[in-house]
Amino acid sequence: MPSLPDMGTPDVMALARAAADAQPHPHDPHVADLALRPAFFDWLCRMGDNALILGHRLSEWCGHGPALEEDIALANTALDLIGHAQLWLGLAAEVEGQGRSADDLAFLRDTLKFRNVKLVELPNGDMAVTLVRQFLFDAWAFGMLKGLATSTSPRVAGIAAKALKEVSYHLERSSDLVVRLGDGTGESHARMQDALDRLWPYAGELFAADAVDEAVAAAGIAPALADLKPDWQRIVDEVLAEATLTRPEVRFDVHLGGKQGRHTEHLGYILAPMQFLQRAYPGASW
Amino acid sequence: MPSLPDMGTPDVMALARAAADAQPHPHDPHVADLALRPAFFDWLCRMGDNALILGHRLSEWCGHGPALEEDIALANTALDLIGHAQLWLGLAAEVEGQGRSADDLAFLRDTLKFRNVKLVELPNGDMAVTLVRQFLFDAWAFGMLKGLATSTSPRVAGIAAKALKEVSYHLERSSDLVVRLGDGTGESHARMQDALDRLWPYAGELFAADAVDEAVAAAGIAPALADLKPDWQRIVDEVLAEATLTRPEVRFDVHLGGKQGRHTEHLGYILAPMQFLQRAYPGASW
Repeated sequence: MPSLPDMGTPDVMALARAAADAQPHPHDPHVADLALRPAFFDWLCRMGDNALILGHRLSEWCGHGPALEEDIALANTALDLIGHAQLWLGLAAEVEGQGRSADDLAFLRDTLKFRNVKLVELPNGDMAVTLVRQFLFDAWAFGMLKGLATSTSPRVAGIAAKALKEVSYHLERSSDLVVRLGDGTGESHARMQDALDRLWPYAGELFAADAVDEAVAAAGIAPALADLKPDWQRIVDEVLAEATLTRPEVRFDVHLGGKQGRHTEHLGYILAPMQFLQRAYPGASW
Repeated sequence: MPSLPDMGTPDVMALARAAADAQPHPHDPHVADLALRPAFFDWLCRMGDNALILGHRLSEWCGHGPALEEDIALANTALDLIGHAQLWLGLAAEVEGQGRSADDLAFLRDTLKFRNVKLVELPNGDMAVTLVRQFLFDAWAFGMLKGLATSTSPRVAGIAAKALKEVSYHLERSSDLVVRLGDGTGESHARMQDALDRLWPYAGELFAADAVDEAVAAAGIAPALADLKPDWQRIVDEVLAEATLTRPEVRFDVHLGGKQGRHTEHLGYILAPMQFLQRAYPGASW
């Protein structure tokens, strides 16, 4: 394992344990705040859709991993993320107050209603693309979930605490693999650099704040995205340096719009098989 | 263009013109024949689903062809086949008599109800796989449609006549390309031989008769599949010889079951995007 930057894990883990031990559904004034509802709902969909779509992408590796250990690890990460999606979208449905469920949001919305960043909907590519994407996302998710541990919304803090424990492992794992493959053979290094060059212009959408992000930050529900950036940049710079990878010179916020529902063509091809069962057999359950 | 075997085109074209000039919906005793209905319906779905799924596969090349002319040609072939599917499935729906439409059959059946051969649902692969598959199918469809020109079902004969005109061109084109690429460079020859070796064990399903095929043959609706085989083999052998390709030694009827609804995993991934719109927006129309 590379010497990872200090991610403040011990303190965060104490917070996580406390939050996870709390009541499952503590009273939360934000959930019924009508003025905040549209922004809070949208923001929860962003959190849920990022996890859902990235989880679905990772699940595509199932049975196709380059080694048994990697196959299982990717599938486990996918399951973690889909679990997070269920929690975020469940709360989103509750906040919306229209009687929809997490499943309704996951399986019955069309592309324009999805709120994930474009980064997570891009095709998996090879393992280099998959792992660099995972690392860039994990580093963001880690900082976001850590910030959410002190959210003024106890429900949000509770979900974040559960998710943070798993995302901490995801980040350790993806950092480790970025270093091992970046600082590996000539072939693995070249592929990792290519992947980084390709994905970098999508990473900045994670930090591109709009009125939705500003509203939930103003309510104390979520940290301001700008406040997450220094730690993310530090983690990324340290891991890339150890991986002997070069941070691209180009802007990192070229491809925006996913958070507002303007997606690449890839999202439709994710939703079609992902939603097939519920659309073909409405209301089907186990 | 290679010197194609005599496919009897002039006579067939006369038949085709006559049938196409006939009334659009002539009286057809078979359409309301209750005893024949299950087999006739299944057989019409087989004809329609082969055309629909192969047409959909070809449509995946749209915008990705290796040259503009090929891109347009593949898209046009796709359109032809989807047009044939609409005619076959429209008649299937009529024969079924349950109030379903061609669109209902195309967009609201799940995999187990599809009746296409496995050959047409296999992934496109490279141009070699796409073209060899097209040639093997075209040569079968050409013989089948020619045989259907004298069907005891005027409705079937009418559809076959319309389709035959287009399939004759498809066969000319795919034969030509198999020869050009088989007898081309070392690389193109190797790819074509690989494609042939891979697809050959699927081709035999087109000739694997079951009770459905026997029932429509006994009613004089369709030729017996065994009767189509000699001409198909002759065309295939002549084209392969001119293409300097070697007919595989293995059996050609290894992969069966598609006609009975037992499909490869690929079909579900075709149906999901193909059916998305009608399933997400039930009853949507232009």
